[in-house]
Amino acid sequence: MHILVIGAAGMVGRKLAQKLAQDGALQGREITAMTLADVVPAEAPSDFSGHVTIETVDLSEPAAAERLTASRPDVIFHLAAIVSGEAELDFEKGYRINLDGTRTLFEAIRVAHTADGYRPRLIFTSSIAVVGAPLPYPVPDDFHTTPLTSYGTQKAICELLLSDYSRKGYFDGIGIRLPTICIRPGKPNKAASGFFSNILREPLVGQEAALPVGEDVRHWHASPRSAVGFLIHAANIDLETVGARRNLSMPGLSATVGEQIDALRRVAGERAVKLIRHEPDEMIMRICAGWPSDFEATRARALGFTAESSFDEIIKAHINDELGGQL
Amino acid sequence: MHILVIGAAGMVGRKLAQKLAQDGALQGREITAMTLADVVPAEAPSDFSGHVTIETVDLSEPAAAERLTASRPDVIFHLAAIVSGEAELDFEKGYRINLDGTRTLFEAIRVAHTADGYRPRLIFTSSIAVVGAPLPYPVPDDFHTTPLTSYGTQKAICELLLSDYSRKGYFDGIGIRLPTICIRPGKPNKAASGFFSNILREPLVGQEAALPVGEDVRHWHASPRSAVGFLIHAANIDLETVGARRNLSMPGLSATVGEQIDALRRVAGERAVKLIRHEPDEMIMRICAGWPSDFEATRARALGFTAESSFDEIIKAHINDELGGQL
Repeated sequence: MHILVIGAAGMVGRKLAQKLAQDGALQGREITAMTLADVVPAEAPSDFSGHVTIETVDLSEPAAAERLTASRPDVIFHLAAIVSGEAELDFEKGYRINLDGTRTLFEAIRVAHTADGYRPRLIFTSSIAVVGAPLPYPVPDDFHTTPLTSYGTQKAICELLLSDYSRKGYFDGIGIRLPTICIRPGKPNKAASGFFSNILREPLVGQEAALPVGEDVRHWHASPRSAVGFLIHAANIDLETVGARRNLSMPGLSATVGEQIDALRRVAGERAVKLIRHEPDEMIMRICAGWPSDFEATRARALGFTAESSFDEIIKAHINDELGGQL
Repeated sequence: MHILVIGAAGMVGRKLAQKLAQDGALQGREITAMTLADVVPAEAPSDFSGHVTIETVDLSEPAAAERLTASRPDVIFHLAAIVSGEAELDFEKGYRINLDGTRTLFEAIRVAHTADGYRPRLIFTSSIAVVGAPLPYPVPDDFHTTPLTSYGTQKAICELLLSDYSRKGYFDGIGIRLPTICIRPGKPNKAASGFFSNILREPLVGQEAALPVGEDVRHWHASPRSAVGFLIHAANIDLETVGARRNLSMPGLSATVGEQIDALRRVAGERAVKLIRHEPDEMIMRICAGWPSDFEATRARALGFTAESSFDEIIKAHINDELGGQL
């Protein structure tokens, strides 16, 4: 079993590679090789006895996809993308990386399929950004994709391509729409959604964090651990039962900022909560108002995808995975 | 007012150019020039006093879109596409013409917008092929696009691009999902949906026609006259009221083959009906089973788009428009 992870230097990509190394198997077969590709060198996972190849490559460059698929990996996780804010600011770059990069990969696989019958499992990370306000709550699985960002548009287009290439038999694809990942490890970043993680992660280590919106703001979350779980489950399940509709909204937790703070209080006490500074930011409030906050995810749940059911769980997962199990 | 029609040599394109020439005005302004583009030379409409330019060009070729937009047409009708069957048989050609051709046009407009603020009204013909079985009936406006053909996938992708380019202000776009056009004038063609027209058009002129499916097969129809009406209405309406969701399922007539035949009997008598030969074709039956047969089209109707309400009307429109008003 040879696995290719594209976007392996990102937060989810790193955790995925580490989990695959730890499991040692996928689809019931031993993992003998991993190719970890990204625009910056990815880190090899620890405690992996198989062969690791680090590829530093921009998928949107000519021949990059051919090179990555030349060794015919059995399973491909395609996580690479530039983020929402950057895709909105740089229209050309967003389409080049998020659309053309993905299409180039799909085309390389199709050409290989035509040449020798190659047909890998392909798992693509899409996003809840494929839908846009006004929305019914919870958003049903069959709601149309009306993105309000170029990033969401690019993801929605790649979903359509994934379904068509899968229908034609060029690869066996599945697209998974990730909730907002919370708690993101690392430093606070400039993403408009960053505060959902910041207000938990920073107080857990005694640092202050700014909350730019009201406590009644509701959003759709899953932990990094759940995200990795979705990806691995997507690689393992029988896609015949999924049928022609290959893109699935993942389960998640719909919670308000107030509910996040209540969970922080239960897990880490009032002292942690006091580190959250209320700093209203009109622009972030406006952006937040356009984001979806609750999905039915009926099909994904029926297929066995699972996520956290409380923010206490999400916070405890962070403490275990990032803080060595202790506050 | 300068109008560009891309796909002007096709059946709908020709009728559109003729209607524009006849009306002499669009958006309340005199039409002074028309550019008619297609891969084969389009015919200049009769009785038009303005300037006509015939462009023989493949939109997917380099610089074609720049050339077509160099004169900054005020309104662009983009009807060019290869049909469903051909796009399914030739995967590369379908994507090159139906997706890349359209994207090239959108990009040329964006570059012009960035250079000098150019921002035309752009009307794009999409298709009911953007949805695929299993479907609820009637299909609601907010149902997700899950095409079961490459053609439908290409149309759905162009819809997403159209919304994003419109949202960014590069052009003022609207996508209209046409029902199956019936009665198509001309000779029987190899399209799987051809029989819906053949079984009416041929008997109306004393010719036999084959019916490959059962009389209970239901489908979604509009006349060529309605299609031209949709296009012109789409050019005239205020798109501010349409909002961010720029793609609309057009109204149409949901009817069974049996209802088509009953209408033929009422309009042209039993002698015409007797010219329909029942020749069951398993492949066409199977293809038909995946096609949508009824749409709510709530938004389009509210915006003033209208279609026929009976097959008698559709047949009479054909007799008037194609047969000089007489059987």
